[in-house]
Amino acid sequence: MVSFECDYSMGAHPAILRSLIETNYEAMPGYGMDKYSTSAKEKIRKACGLEDADVEFLVGGTQTNAVIISTMLKDCEGVITASSGHINVHESGAVEYTGHKVLSLPQKQGKLDPHDLNEFLVSFYSDVTHEHMVFPGMVYISHPTEMGTLYSKQELEEISDICHEYGMQLFMDGARLGYGLMSNSTDVTLQDIARLTDVFYIGGTKVGALCGEAVVFTKNNKPQHFVTSIKKRGALLAKGRLLGIQFDTLFTDDLYFRISRHAIEMAEQLREIIVEKGWEFYIDSPTNQQLILMNEEQMAELSQYVTFDRWGLYDEERTIVRLATSWATTPEDLQVLREARIG
Amino acid sequence: MVSFECDYSMGAHPAILRSLIETNYEAMPGYGMDKYSTSAKEKIRKACGLEDADVEFLVGGTQTNAVIISTMLKDCEGVITASSGHINVHESGAVEYTGHKVLSLPQKQGKLDPHDLNEFLVSFYSDVTHEHMVFPGMVYISHPTEMGTLYSKQELEEISDICHEYGMQLFMDGARLGYGLMSNSTDVTLQDIARLTDVFYIGGTKVGALCGEAVVFTKNNKPQHFVTSIKKRGALLAKGRLLGIQFDTLFTDDLYFRISRHAIEMAEQLREIIVEKGWEFYIDSPTNQQLILMNEEQMAELSQYVTFDRWGLYDEERTIVRLATSWATTPEDLQVLREARIG
Amino acid sequence: MVSFECDYSMGAHPAILRSLIETNYEAMPGYGMDKYSTSAKEKIRKACGLEDADVEFLVGGTQTNAVIISTMLKDCEGVITASSGHINVHESGAVEYTGHKVLSLPQKQGKLDPHDLNEFLVSFYSDVTHEHMVFPGMVYISHPTEMGTLYSKQELEEISDICHEYGMQLFMDGARLGYGLMSNSTDVTLQDIARLTDVFYIGGTKVGALCGEAVVFTKNNKPQHFVTSIKKRGALLAKGRLLGIQFDTLFTDDLYFRISRHAIEMAEQLREIIVEKGWEFYIDSPTNQQLILMNEEQMAELSQYVTFDRWGLYDEERTIVRLATSWATTPEDLQVLREARIG
Amino acid sequence: MVSFECDYSMGAHPAILRSLIETNYEAMPGYGMDKYSTSAKEKIRKACGLEDADVEFLVGGTQTNAVIISTMLKDCEGVITASSGHINVHESGAVEYTGHKVLSLPQKQGKLDPHDLNEFLVSFYSDVTHEHMVFPGMVYISHPTEMGTLYSKQELEEISDICHEYGMQLFMDGARLGYGLMSNSTDVTLQDIARLTDVFYIGGTKVGALCGEAVVFTKNNKPQHFVTSIKKRGALLAKGRLLGIQFDTLFTDDLYFRISRHAIEMAEQLREIIVEKGWEFYIDSPTNQQLILMNEEQMAELSQYVTFDRWGLYDEERTIVRLATSWATTPEDLQVLREARIG
Repeated sequence: MVSFECDYSMGAHPAILRSLIETNYEAMPGYGMDKYSTSAKEKIRKACGLEDADVEFLVGGTQTNAVIISTMLKDCEGVITASSGHINVHESGAVEYTGHKVLSLPQKQGKLDPHDLNEFLVSFYSDVTHEHMVFPGMVYISHPTEMGTLYSKQELEEISDICHEYGMQLFMDGARLGYGLMSNSTDVTLQDIARLTDVFYIGGTKVGALCGEAVVFTKNNKPQHFVTSIKKRGALLAKGRLLGIQFDTLFTDDLYFRISRHAIEMAEQLREIIVEKGWEFYIDSPTNQQLILMNEEQMAELSQYVTFDRWGLYDEERTIVRLATSWATTPEDLQVLREARIG
Repeated sequence: MVSFECDYSMGAHPAILRSLIETNYEAMPGYGMDKYSTSAKEKIRKACGLEDADVEFLVGGTQTNAVIISTMLKDCEGVITASSGHINVHESGAVEYTGHKVLSLPQKQGKLDPHDLNEFLVSFYSDVTHEHMVFPGMVYISHPTEMGTLYSKQELEEISDICHEYGMQLFMDGARLGYGLMSNSTDVTLQDIARLTDVFYIGGTKVGALCGEAVVFTKNNKPQHFVTSIKKRGALLAKGRLLGIQFDTLFTDDLYFRISRHAIEMAEQLREIIVEKGWEFYIDSPTNQQLILMNEEQMAELSQYVTFDRWGLYDEERTIVRLATSWATTPEDLQVLREARIG
Repeated sequence: MVSFECDYSMGAHPAILRSLIETNYEAMPGYGMDKYSTSAKEKIRKACGLEDADVEFLVGGTQTNAVIISTMLKDCEGVITASSGHINVHESGAVEYTGHKVLSLPQKQGKLDPHDLNEFLVSFYSDVTHEHMVFPGMVYISHPTEMGTLYSKQELEEISDICHEYGMQLFMDGARLGYGLMSNSTDVTLQDIARLTDVFYIGGTKVGALCGEAVVFTKNNKPQHFVTSIKKRGALLAKGRLLGIQFDTLFTDDLYFRISRHAIEMAEQLREIIVEKGWEFYIDSPTNQQLILMNEEQMAELSQYVTFDRWGLYDEERTIVRLATSWATTPEDLQVLREARIG
Repeated sequence: MVSFECDYSMGAHPAILRSLIETNYEAMPGYGMDKYSTSAKEKIRKACGLEDADVEFLVGGTQTNAVIISTMLKDCEGVITASSGHINVHESGAVEYTGHKVLSLPQKQGKLDPHDLNEFLVSFYSDVTHEHMVFPGMVYISHPTEMGTLYSKQELEEISDICHEYGMQLFMDGARLGYGLMSNSTDVTLQDIARLTDVFYIGGTKVGALCGEAVVFTKNNKPQHFVTSIKKRGALLAKGRLLGIQFDTLFTDDLYFRISRHAIEMAEQLREIIVEKGWEFYIDSPTNQQLILMNEEQMAELSQYVTFDRWGLYDEERTIVRLATSWATTPEDLQVLREARIG
């Protein structure tokens, strides 16, 4: 069955498997002290245009969010997010498990609105009782968002300015960063992100790796004894090489960008098919996730051709259906969808 | 300066001080094992109409909320509240500090709407990804609410039914419970609360005590080794007698209810004064807290007669002002307000 | 029954009750912003010989330990204690509940040995894997210790030097500090403690107050937004006046020191009685707690005259019995013990 | 350079890489819902002789320890370990980070002594203040231990009996379980472990996998909504297939046992070499880790032939050196060591 369910349903890009095989019998120190991790970090620094950024590898997205947020917030602080932010909805309370509140603001197209953010902060600091409240210490944004939408450079600059005006850190969850950077509709580069955020991560799991996220601390701001804090959270991989080798491969010859670009091209064709079929978009997404509205009958038919994700209920009749492309999507996969006969 | 700022600006009801003096030289075991604690628990059980409820004393409200919620939730669960709930706004993230998410629903007149609650639960359990979300394990309601409003018996019954249908516990924050029970406009009795909730507390701090809240577990559901869990949270008072003696006094000859009733009578007169003065109510409150709208000029004038609380901003010109009565409010205090000359 | 069970079995020193009565009808702001708290802090600063120390009041000892340790440690750090330290044994894991390890070293007469401390640190930092271990960030000592013993000034200076050499903070739990300072056998003054520690607390609960501990940050090192961190831990008392008034009274006319001195004088007489009776000391204590060895028969007889604490098992026949004096112990109490006829 | 440093310095057993390649283009659901995870669980159940055990896969050892301990303990409980237990020394306080105390008893040959355990429990429950202490809720043992030693079946039965007498759970950390099961000197089978423990894990990371540990709940005691608890701790792997495929391979045709047996055979030859060389053993280990004593000069010489681990200081002159074999150790590796010329 052809899979459009999500962008992590396949294994890994073949180049990654090749690297794992080639390096398999090299003895290396554990915990990320291996040479491939070192090399991968250097390549990521270069791609970001940051000579001395600290780069660290973690295994998965929720883990990365919880580790970053809990090590970078002060005791009295919480993290601001759009209500639809992954940390607020689909991480089983992992941030709260570290003892910090998630402060949610209404999502607008899956994004945090700079105006809402500013208003919240003005209101917070004008409240005479704010010492009994949770201080906003960080802003979390996902880019692309959970709905596939993207921030413009203008929006990122506004959010970044507000953060720094109020002494907050800006953290970007880049679980699908490649798909955002390679979108036809973005004016945001990796260098922009490195400049405008305090910390962000480059997602591997959803962009061709077996697992792994690369955290970039952009402002000489890696928490002290970070390895110990990672270990304390059960997030330190013994065979750190598994992460180092994968990211070293992804950042060799622009593989990360090339496979992301491929997914975007597949997504553009997917959008054409959706338009052709007359299906209704739930939201206009310039990245690899396309959200459309379907009723039960349509979904029953669709399920005979491809797998997809029931993303949420839209109204009493219709469901929001997610179709996602990835590095592994092929023109043949799209053809199956194109030829599908759905009422 | 006459104080209408809050209901905890004075010391304690004189009967409480008297009891402390009379018992001062009795040697007693610590940690709530004293005879006054035992007696107070028995009196509270009787007042609740519960023969075998477990009653425990804690020092303050935020502490009580965090202890109850964190010991009664399962690992995968969070607590539902109206967005205006004290745990969601003014406790510095104390619930999240225990590792549990606060799930907020929109407040309606400061209350949780049973319909909203039901809708949230239907939506949660129909979401195929809900195992990656925080399970709703408890509903938190404050009665009176932070805005001074009250649930009707009908509303409590609906919420209680929904809770039990979905395997959730119902917890009532009764920091100002006396003022709710003695309101002219309530049809809810202490026995109703004991029947409809799984756990609630009878507030002392804001109803005449120096400190102290009495937690009532209504369904033989006190967490195992609860004393140890209290100690673990730094919430076990060495001289537990301080709490036992106060609650024993408050529940002797209906003192708790009599002083609450007094505050309500004062609040009714306060409402008349507000109407006479032509001040605008922010919300219609049948309890001891009255929220009104004033501009800066009016507040400047008011501040020459009495103290009050700037509860929040209403719009660009007006502030929500809180005037609160308590067991300690006198007719003379009201007279000062009545005679105040405010534009 | 005459009580030698502990030093917190009575209410409060009568001067404290008097102050509570006298101030009862003064309206004051909550959360420690009242004038008595301000005055008490100033008096404590003066007693410590520290012009600009930050002083904060908390309700109880375990709470204070957990709040101080968890707000002053870094994420990767734990706290070193003698194995017999209160935080390691009798606080139900309250420090661990905040996410930090208690690193215990063998107790020597209830104390942490500077030599052991130094050896531990040398070993820790020579371990190549110490980034996978818990960093020692603070040393906790109790003075007097849980066994009634005292550190000499020489010992405190050694420990303080080691702490600062290794970038650790020194925290003194002074739950019974008055009894230590007024001992016949100490060369340590309050000013010494203020100089040698980074933070310590002056115990109220066990020295004549209903509740309350006064934390002194000696090195301009109060954690940022400390009130918020206290609130977050459920430890902020609404009627902060209860703590302010008590400590203001205790630090007026040297009351804290006078009642501590009284307890020491009573303890000296108690020691004479123990010697006269031929009872065996478990340890030589120069403070208000005396630990002796008794068999079951002796304890049965003793229990007919006074209450006491079964502190622990000594061997198969004998129990360690604690007899404690306090501000409330009278010569008549001692006379009862003196006249007791025990085999 | 030939590596004897540890058992996780190579990649993965080639059969595992082969499986990853073969399954790479199969679209599978995430989070462990894939068919290889299902198959692996079934094979593990069979190997354990448990028809209906719950098996779950996690990524690494510290993570597994923290997840298991924190989800299986009650709020008031801590976990008992030998002082040398990995959770007590080398996990950066990961268990304490979950809010639970690690209760350490003296290690004897790296093991927990059943007699010590019993004595601790008798003492704990005879202490009248034990409600202010941390309740022992679980016993943690590692098998093989951190020193390479093994429990006998008799010892395991005694510990298991004590656990169940005192209402505690028995948890075995099997990070190197294969090497224990295949030792020449053990009388403990996988079925014994399944019978005597409440939960244990079969280590993959140190026995030929890239990552992964298989947790076995032996008594129908998997925590409710365990997936949510895993997610909450940031420990849920998106591409769960990575774990499923590896364990499915390891438990096909006894691969796990065969490669463990190989490591043991290499270790036996290593022991012979150590004896031949006249090096002194630190401890007698029947598993894949051999601990010996060397001075600086010897280590300098040894380091010219092979890599090894400086495990700890022994005395002022000598260091404890660890030489470890693994599934990847070859006779040629041993030959290098055999021919090494060390003073």
